[in-house]
Amino acid sequence: MRYKLYYWPGIQGRGEFVRLALEYADADYVDVLRHSKDFSLPKNPAPFALPYLVAGKLVISHTASILQYLGPRLGLAPKAEAGRLWVHQLQLTIADWLVEVHDVHHPIGSGLYYEEQKREAKRRAGDFLAVRLPKYLGYFEDVLRRAPGGYLLGKTCGYADLSLFQMVAGLRYAFPVVFGRLEKRHARIAEVHERVASRPRLAAYLASARRIPFNRQGIFRHYPELDLPGKKSKKT
Amino acid sequence: MRYKLYYWPGIQGRGEFVRLALEYADADYVDVLRHSKDFSLPKNPAPFALPYLVAGKLVISHTASILQYLGPRLGLAPKAEAGRLWVHQLQLTIADWLVEVHDVHHPIGSGLYYEEQKREAKRRAGDFLAVRLPKYLGYFEDVLRRAPGGYLLGKTCGYADLSLFQMVAGLRYAFPVVFGRLEKRHARIAEVHERVASRPRLAAYLASARRIPFNRQGIFRHYPELDLPGKKSKKT
Repeated sequence: MRYKLYYWPGIQGRGEFVRLALEYADADYVDVLRHSKDFSLPKNPAPFALPYLVAGKLVISHTASILQYLGPRLGLAPKAEAGRLWVHQLQLTIADWLVEVHDVHHPIGSGLYYEEQKREAKRRAGDFLAVRLPKYLGYFEDVLRRAPGGYLLGKTCGYADLSLFQMVAGLRYAFPVVFGRLEKRHARIAEVHERVASRPRLAAYLASARRIPFNRQGIFRHYPELDLPGKKSKKT
Repeated sequence: MRYKLYYWPGIQGRGEFVRLALEYADADYVDVLRHSKDFSLPKNPAPFALPYLVAGKLVISHTASILQYLGPRLGLAPKAEAGRLWVHQLQLTIADWLVEVHDVHHPIGSGLYYEEQKREAKRRAGDFLAVRLPKYLGYFEDVLRRAPGGYLLGKTCGYADLSLFQMVAGLRYAFPVVFGRLEKRHARIAEVHERVASRPRLAAYLASARRIPFNRQGIFRHYPELDLPGKKSKKT
């Protein structure tokens, strides 16, 4: 099966979570829009947004749904129902987390420029870094603590571990100051990042031109004015 | 199987999307926290947030994941893989839409009061009502147009139709002025709402005390100052 991935060619974005699974598993896939601009959205079923994956006759959108489909086929998810349900929930939590990362620099509207919502972005960044980011990190650190073996589901790297790797990579890029401090207190999460990054296929992918560099068009963006500690808003 | 649903007892919120499926299918379930305050989050697996469903030994969190699990068991999802994948994607799109509804009144931080982010909320409401809400409505109207039969997947009411019903109900409550105009141009969506509401079991549920009224603690909130047309922000 040759999978076809459709995603914006200039950013890592949501597509990267799918790319990491395909690359890690050495799957046969084409990152279509990096080679051709000639595409139109499928009509039936019609994805609401990119990314979507074409697998034979199936069209699958939503990162978490694509990974749920690919997981068992690429050896990146458990076979038993309880495990498959659990890893999908972890992925959906990562999806929510990623929306919040995006909304730090776009708290008013995704169709507006950052510069048009910079004041609001500073305020949202303060809340995100002081409240929400520690909450997500604490949650995943706790999941890792309860699943001895170094990965979210135990001893085997699954697609949610690849996504957690990507969250760490992106947060290091976007918030080097604040996340740099926080990740020291979440050693198990940082270890997942190192463990994933050192796997030969992933290391080769990360060193290749296929890995698009982080930039200010993506979801993870580095604006120094948003990477400030100690800005927690008070609940009055 | 007696299902146990855990969700905040004072609001419809995300739990309502699960309640609607359980009620529509006349499933045997307990809305646990409406009868008891004595609960602690399961530890392994630990949900990130409410709602979660206990089904025998399984603990399932995330609304879309709960509905994906319940769908085939309650006769609210297709049996074939393509259909099950498709309805899950529709539900994930509704989940994204719902986050945006919530963030209209909480654009800075979910832990802060609305009054602390009212100025930002007015700006986000303008973008949501002018750009995002029409985009979601146009998408679902188009899906309904392509799936003749009156429901999202054709002739049978599924869990995503119940969720679309809930979106309409909530939007009518929160944005009577702007949504009142928009829904006239999206007649198929409004028809799904009427069709679902008139089914005897749903009608009985909606008229019962089990249906919590909309209020200003929930996701759909009515603030007249946010329900203003013609506030589209310009992309400069």
